[in-house]
Amino acid sequence: MYGIFSYDIGSPRVGFKHGDYVLDLDVVALLGYFADVSVDTSIFAQPFLNDFIALGEPIHQAVWQRITTLLTDEQGFAEVRDQVFIHNSRVQMHLPIRIGDYTDFYAGIHHAENVGRMFRPDGDPLLPNYRHMPVAYHGRASSIVVSGMPIRRPEGQFLGPDKQPVFGPSQALDFELELGLIIGKSSTLGEPISVEEAEDYIFGVTLFNDWSARDIQRWEYQPLGPFLGKNFASSISAWVLPFEALEPFRIKGPVQEPVPLPYLQVQEPGHFYLALEVWLETENGERVCISTSNARHLYWNFAQMIAHHTVNGCNLNIGDVVATGTISGTEPDTFGSLLELSWNGQRPLNVSPTEIRTFLNDGDTITLRGYGLKNGVRTELGDVTGTIYTKSESANL
Amino acid sequence: MYGIFSYDIGSPRVGFKHGDYVLDLDVVALLGYFADVSVDTSIFAQPFLNDFIALGEPIHQAVWQRITTLLTDEQGFAEVRDQVFIHNSRVQMHLPIRIGDYTDFYAGIHHAENVGRMFRPDGDPLLPNYRHMPVAYHGRASSIVVSGMPIRRPEGQFLGPDKQPVFGPSQALDFELELGLIIGKSSTLGEPISVEEAEDYIFGVTLFNDWSARDIQRWEYQPLGPFLGKNFASSISAWVLPFEALEPFRIKGPVQEPVPLPYLQVQEPGHFYLALEVWLETENGERVCISTSNARHLYWNFAQMIAHHTVNGCNLNIGDVVATGTISGTEPDTFGSLLELSWNGQRPLNVSPTEIRTFLNDGDTITLRGYGLKNGVRTELGDVTGTIYTKSESANL
Repeated sequence: MYGIFSYDIGSPRVGFKHGDYVLDLDVVALLGYFADVSVDTSIFAQPFLNDFIALGEPIHQAVWQRITTLLTDEQGFAEVRDQVFIHNSRVQMHLPIRIGDYTDFYAGIHHAENVGRMFRPDGDPLLPNYRHMPVAYHGRASSIVVSGMPIRRPEGQFLGPDKQPVFGPSQALDFELELGLIIGKSSTLGEPISVEEAEDYIFGVTLFNDWSARDIQRWEYQPLGPFLGKNFASSISAWVLPFEALEPFRIKGPVQEPVPLPYLQVQEPGHFYLALEVWLETENGERVCISTSNARHLYWNFAQMIAHHTVNGCNLNIGDVVATGTISGTEPDTFGSLLELSWNGQRPLNVSPTEIRTFLNDGDTITLRGYGLKNGVRTELGDVTGTIYTKSESANL
Repeated sequence: MYGIFSYDIGSPRVGFKHGDYVLDLDVVALLGYFADVSVDTSIFAQPFLNDFIALGEPIHQAVWQRITTLLTDEQGFAEVRDQVFIHNSRVQMHLPIRIGDYTDFYAGIHHAENVGRMFRPDGDPLLPNYRHMPVAYHGRASSIVVSGMPIRRPEGQFLGPDKQPVFGPSQALDFELELGLIIGKSSTLGEPISVEEAEDYIFGVTLFNDWSARDIQRWEYQPLGPFLGKNFASSISAWVLPFEALEPFRIKGPVQEPVPLPYLQVQEPGHFYLALEVWLETENGERVCISTSNARHLYWNFAQMIAHHTVNGCNLNIGDVVATGTISGTEPDTFGSLLELSWNGQRPLNVSPTEIRTFLNDGDTITLRGYGLKNGVRTELGDVTGTIYTKSESANL
């Protein structure tokens, strides 16, 4: 996995995660290890991955190959171990991508059904368009932060107990378990990307936490969708897993009925079997896995999301983030948000004998984890973590 | 007004609009005219205004002052006229801003009411939150184009006559008459901008056309808001009017009842009296003003939009675009979209004895104009224009 890190007094540069160490690709390049891969050595001395991503697929493959060879060969870095491996206790991670636009899909069908059941109890849980298109909205790019950054509880306007708008800190702060795709190739305005080509536009995959203030969101979202209920912060992994690394976990997706329009018809397998977990750690140190889900629960796959996004001519750029929406399973302990896990606060969650939750408390840390497992080989996604605080505590952070 | 232009074989640089000429600020700077203003001359040799904007208010004022003095003094550019003034027939205009995030408000109350009357005929035309907060959603930054760029009719999914989803070119392509604010100062994530400080974050103002495909939008927008119905293209003026130039046109806004929450309470006057016009030119050259509106019809003012946008800690960056939403007046010939002007197609618009419109035809050109007028002095906003074409015609453009 690639990320942007710094240590000691050095400036941010590209690193490669290797167990508890970060391989400093800037130094690796300066030492000449990429001489036969025809990359400019300065490409790893950048504060974002964008320029590396822009080199394109063949270079990414060559670099990946070279790194893997060097790491598996005992003599690979034998002479320079201390120069190129930095223990993760010494590094600071940075936002890996200079993000252009950020789009959030709603492709987790069980999440959409749960929300429908809670808020439209008398109707069909899914709105009529849901099975015809991957519904999405535009999110806020400026407030996407790297894993580890503390998350300030947003203040805002929501309906109080007497149904009148009040102002204050959100009382219904939530996480959302999502995957984030990092776009690796720019498209041209006016030119759709076909569903067949769509995966070529994905550079890598991250875990993504679309923090949500449910009380703010509920009051504001009609008719134009979520705004301040979401845009106070989203957290993205520090480490980006190249899309190719997901190949062993490719599976067929759910039967799509009704059959989508031709521009969304995709050759299966186009989904991925990736285990997903949500961990909650309370301020007093209790730590519990509150949900286990799987990327297979997405109704629409990545290729369909990208084809739909661009079918009207909307262009994608390198560094755009396309998130999947909340990925919930079918069972109550597989839901991807506290909104669902606590069923809108009606079924508080027992975190421990002494702690219950409906929504997030100050001091709570949410960590999203994910991995693929095949033939005993485990491929990790970069995890994403964040701790909630309120304004008055900010001086202590 | 400032913009980015190029001519002959020169690279894009900052220009200042002066009647039918563009004042080449890069050359003006190289000739030493800004020697006493302490700006790095390279600031005008940039392909976007962002670096100039980042210099901050005192420098903008000094530059503006210097340019105005030189332009009003007959001897100002006497010796170098041919070097610094480029006739607009020779210039190509470029997107003036490297846009970060783009937000679209819904602050035109008569537009919101009209939409409500059309689509929720049995209810209150305004949703319950409307008078409590400036409703907004995130738009797509990548597909914002400069005035003059042709606009490709989007294809997409919408409900056909039998209420089943079909795919094809939008049959309900529309414009929206809006103002766009260019953010001039970055704020810190987690730190709201107060309504009192909010105007300090505005560098300049443009006209903004939020092209909309009503059929696509109507089918997709529940529950997360507009997506492909909007993100195929938005058009922004090539010229950015510095916010200070609006000062003479400041007026009190409408009485806000109920009184907004304190974070939205603003010292009046905080609105602006700016005449707005929409011109339609058909492919056969008929040209008619189809709407005259005014910025005074906004319910929420600029300061309130910015205060609301950031009250949850969402950060703004230099070069972000904040658009107002469609600005309709109260009378049928003052509506800011064809959706309203043709009342959702029920009252086709007579453009000429031979041309009627419900939505836009291929070959139609929409031009938005705007100006303030006080004591005989007219201050123009940069206009914004775009011509509709469909895919098959693109080879001819």
